[in-house]
Order: sequence, then structure tokens, then C-alpha cells
Amino acid sequence: MTSLRKCALLILCLVALSGSAWAQPDREVLYQTSTLDALMVGVYDGPVSFQQLGQHGDFGLGTVNALDGEMLALEGHFYQITADGVVHEIDAAAHTPFACVTFFDRDRSASIGAQNSLAELSAQLDLLLPTKNTFYAIRIDGEFPYLKCRSVPRQQRPYPGLAAAVAEQSVFEWRDLRGTIVGFRCPAYVKGVNVAGYHFHFIDATRTRGGHLLDCQVRQAEVALDLTRELRLVLPESEDFDRAPLDEAPGEEPTPAE
Amino acid sequence: MTSLRKCALLILCLVALSGSAWAQPDREVLYQTSTLDALMVGVYDGPVSFQQLGQHGDFGLGTVNALDGEMLALEGHFYQITADGVVHEIDAAAHTPFACVTFFDRDRSASIGAQNSLAELSAQLDLLLPTKNTFYAIRIDGEFPYLKCRSVPRQQRPYPGLAAAVAEQSVFEWRDLRGTIVGFRCPAYVKGVNVAGYHFHFIDATRTRGGHLLDCQVRQAEVALDLTRELRLVLPESEDFDRAPLDEAPGEEPTPAE
Repeated sequence: MTSLRKCALLILCLVALSGSAWAQPDREVLYQTSTLDALMVGVYDGPVSFQQLGQHGDFGLGTVNALDGEMLALEGHFYQITADGVVHEIDAAAHTPFACVTFFDRDRSASIGAQNSLAELSAQLDLLLPTKNTFYAIRIDGEFPYLKCRSVPRQQRPYPGLAAAVAEQSVFEWRDLRGTIVGFRCPAYVKGVNVAGYHFHFIDATRTRGGHLLDCQVRQAEVALDLTRELRLVLPESEDFDRAPLDEAPGEEPTPAE
Repeated sequence: MTSLRKCALLILCLVALSGSAWAQPDREVLYQTSTLDALMVGVYDGPVSFQQLGQHGDFGLGTVNALDGEMLALEGHFYQITADGVVHEIDAAAHTPFACVTFFDRDRSASIGAQNSLAELSAQLDLLLPTKNTFYAIRIDGEFPYLKCRSVPRQQRPYPGLAAAVAEQSVFEWRDLRGTIVGFRCPAYVKGVNVAGYHFHFIDATRTRGGHLLDCQVRQAEVALDLTRELRLVLPESEDFDRAPLDEAPGEEPTPAE
């Protein structure tokens, strides 16, 4: 090989290396667009596309512009569960007003047995946490004798607050599904920014049923935890967000009595 | 020039370019180590050095390990104001349990006239904000007919909570100083993570007096705002942090009656 060719090869290698270094995102970051409080007061349109969101994570949850259903990200696929119960893969050009994603890396895992409710499952998960003061991405693959999920209907402007929108939710109940619970546990001190405690969405193994998890029973499941110490909170550049009355926001996700 | 030399030069340029791209931090980010709630419950030692902190900003505030006084960063200098009222430049090897920094870029500026109190100054600043829903770094250079600052004394393990530590604060009052107020305004929804509203430290023009700002009068001042939409909250990797009872943390900075 001539020295010129060697040089050209070296340059190519350098360019490739620096390119991959730039493209490599930090996997140990929870990336969040907008805040829970903004969603609470009806900021249902955001400027972040799913193409952009995908650069920050392959795993997570949120919603779609106009509050058009529940969003769940799993293994790089972004799913929308609309209020009619249909699961759609989301177009990269669609946008989100609120989402939370990370690149999922299994830090801890455990097999768990029968759980009779989401409360029981949560108490079981609590036992697996080395500390309650950090963020966790949580993936639970299992068999579920019972599941109760909800989705919210697409809203029209002028947007009502989240409590009013959730009052119109669709509720789905299923027996004996296999599938995956996707979500996060956030520490209490981020209340207002994100959901304090556990927040889960569900999708079944056939990717045809799912939603925001309201309750479940577990036969057996594999739990994987990704402990994350960094939150990247990015506020949307939008008039809706800037004008939202966030000083008066209630700071808790509404859970209508059912 | 031989083609080999040309190649070598090109390689050097590429390496320099990629190096500078790697070294270039995002200036529009508020970088924060640990949380207000953790400081509230006595997590006064952190693993982040000032050398590391300086990579994330040249402007900001916080404290030093063992809660050893007030910290203020201005134009890349990190100052510690100990409880005896002395201002020290901080060694890069020292560590911080709580700090908030950014690279200051003037987005908006304004000249303001006489203000009779910190409350009046805050109300005046409110008028300059395009929205109360984002983060602001705020720099105020001016003439101050009156200033009242405090610093907290270095604590011993087992550490008391911040309210107890602040009860032992030193209070300094000065007349007719020139100097700079350095601080942030955080939106209400980050309460628990950081101070909701304004949080200011002060240092005089001779860099010999300063502290956490409790009150002030302004003769005239130049206000500069750096609007910031991204918060990078990085939780410390420490047993102290992980074990802190953050579920019970009060979420507001104590302001002892004086």
C-alpha cells in the first residue's frame, strides 16, 4: 500500500471513529420532554418528534400530540394505544407533548411469583430497589391473569386539563395475557416534573392490546431494573408551554375513581 | 508539500476538530448535582469536584463539602464564602454536595433603578421574564446602598438537617458596596429538586465580601438573564445520598426569622 493510501485509510478510520463518538448517546440518562404539571393543565401539543425522541431512548412512555392515547416505547418501537383500544406504530414525524425515555440496560433482574394487584406488585418491586432516591426504568415481562388498562381520547382545542380528559378515558380489561409492562419509578422529590412513584404502561406480546396500567394480577414475571442517576429535563420551545399556568398546577396525576 | 505531509496535516486538522467538538459543552443547560431535598436532610458531602463542576458551567451557586459556607461561581472563578466572612478561591480538588451551574450567555438585559428590598428587586425581575415556566440564570451588576448576606458554618458528622445548620448562620450587613448578584430563578414545579423562585448569592467587586443574599437595596444595576430550557439533574453516587430519607424531606429552603 502506498503511503497516500495508508493516509486515506487512516483518515477514513478517524472520521468513522469521531462520527460514532458523536452519534453515541449517553445511555444512562432519563430524557424527558416537558413536565407532568404542563400536561396536567392541558399542554397537549409539543414540538418534539418521535424521530427526535428516538435519539434519546428506545424504552419509555408518554403520549402523542392532542393527548391522542397512551404511548409506550419498547426495544426501539414506539406504540400508540388510542382510546378505541387499537395499537399503532407511531410515525417518526408525529410529535409528543410529554414523554420520558431512556436506553434500557438491565442493571438488576429478578423473577417474581404471583401478585394479586398492582399495589402488591409495586410493594414487591420496592423490595428490589437499592435506594428510593434515584430514577429507575422498569421492564416486566410476564404472564398476567388479569389486566386493567386505560387510554385517553384525542382532545380538541381549547384543551381541558388532564383531570377532565381522563374523566373520558376508555377502560380495557383482559384475562390471561402475556406481555410487557414498561415504565419508571421516580423519587418523590420530582413531583410536578414527573410522576412520583411508579408509572406503567402495558403492551401484550402480540402488540395489539395495551394502555396505561390501572391494575393487574401477575402469575409470574421477569423484572429488569435500569437504575439511572441523571435526568435530562428539556422544556419545549412553545407558546403553549410558556403560557401555561404552572404556578397553579396540582402536581399529581389524576386517578379517577372507578 | 509532499502528499504524505498534506495527509499528516489533514489528519492533525481532523483530530483537532473532533477534539474541540468533544470538548465543547452545551452552554444552554443548567447542570445540577444533587437535590435541594438531599441538602435539606443533611447530605453535605458529595463526590463531584470543582474541577468536574467547572466543565459544566462558569456561573452559578451552591456550597462546599461539609456545608462549609456559600459557593458562588462567576466568570469561571469559584468562590467560597466561609462563615467567618472570608472569601476564598476554591481549589479544583475540593468537592461539592450541591451546586447548580451553567455557561452564562446574556439573552436579555435591562438597566434598573432604585429598589428598596430584595422583594422589590424580585418583583422588578418578574417583569423582565418572558415566561415563569423556564429556568433563568441571573446576573446583576450594580451599586448596593445596603446588603445583608449570610453564610453557614462548616458542619461535623453526624450532620444535622439544613434548618438546624442555618440556625447557626453568620449574618453580614454592609453599606454602599459595588458587586454582583449571581443566581437562578427556577419554576415552582421543581420544588424539592431546587429552590423554587429566586435564589441569589452575592460577591462584591473586590471579591472580599459576599454570601447567600438575604436582603438588599439597589441604587442602580444592570440585569442580565440567560433563559435556559434544559435541566441536567445528576444524582451523586454516594451512600449518603442513597440512604437519605428523601420521602420525608420538606422541600423548601429554611429562612430563619431574623
